[in-house]
Amino acid sequence: MKPKLSLVTLGVSDLDRSRRFYEALGWEPQDWTPESKVVFFELNGVMLSLFGRDDLAEDVGVEATRSTGFSSITLAHNEPSIDDVDRAFNEFISAGATAVKTPQATAWGGYSGYVADPDGHLWEVAFNPFSDWT
Amino acid sequence: MKPKLSLVTLGVSDLDRSRRFYEALGWEPQDWTPESKVVFFELNGVMLSLFGRDDLAEDVGVEATRSTGFSSITLAHNEPSIDDVDRAFNEFISAGATAVKTPQATAWGGYSGYVADPDGHLWEVAFNPFSDWT
Repeated sequence: MKPKLSLVTLGVSDLDRSRRFYEALGWEPQDWTPESKVVFFELNGVMLSLFGRDDLAEDVGVEATRSTGFSSITLAHNEPSIDDVDRAFNEFISAGATAVKTPQATAWGGYSGYVADPDGHLWEVAFNPFSDWT
Repeated sequence: MKPKLSLVTLGVSDLDRSRRFYEALGWEPQDWTPESKVVFFELNGVMLSLFGRDDLAEDVGVEATRSTGFSSITLAHNEPSIDDVDRAFNEFISAGATAVKTPQATAWGGYSGYVADPDGHLWEVAFNPFSDWT
């Protein structure tokens, strides 16, 4: 099948809070109205969607049991320089993210930090000197 | 900041097994060698990376505690028709995915199923008649 990731859906406990968090990064919801049960952001080729955690579990067909432990999945927003990483990291924090790891040099030769969104979904903010994925 | 998702990283317990799983979908790793500690797939504008679960936790700076409960995050691969969803769902199963939800009509007017990859990461395979994200 075609190598394609169409959509990443984050289950959230408070849809309004999460929408405002991502809007505070300067990202604009697509076709959003106050009645929307799902919020879409077009992230340059892939969609990010926010959906109630219980609704998402119901769609998958599993119980919405509380998650504990390390989630084992991270999203990354890359920037073209170290300074840009610091700026974007601070924008995440200003939007209400929780700092998980202050941006720093990495073992793989890049520079990155981690934040958590209001539901704990992990975002890496990274500069990769070898691959421009910005 | 720019609305951009650069990379989705899946923490995996067996890097070879996970690489072979995604290769079995017909996806080709980028710049992979047997010594690679991370495996990248270019998914049409966003990178998917596979990384050891413990290594990922270390990079984030958290304990690699076992995750339980509903993960609250799903990835979606969209297809342009119902028949294509059925075919792609079967390709996932043939590759070794676990069936979570057989493809079926959805409440939102589309058609989708869910599978889990070898580490339980959830993929939706979907046809969306309203938005072509294929």
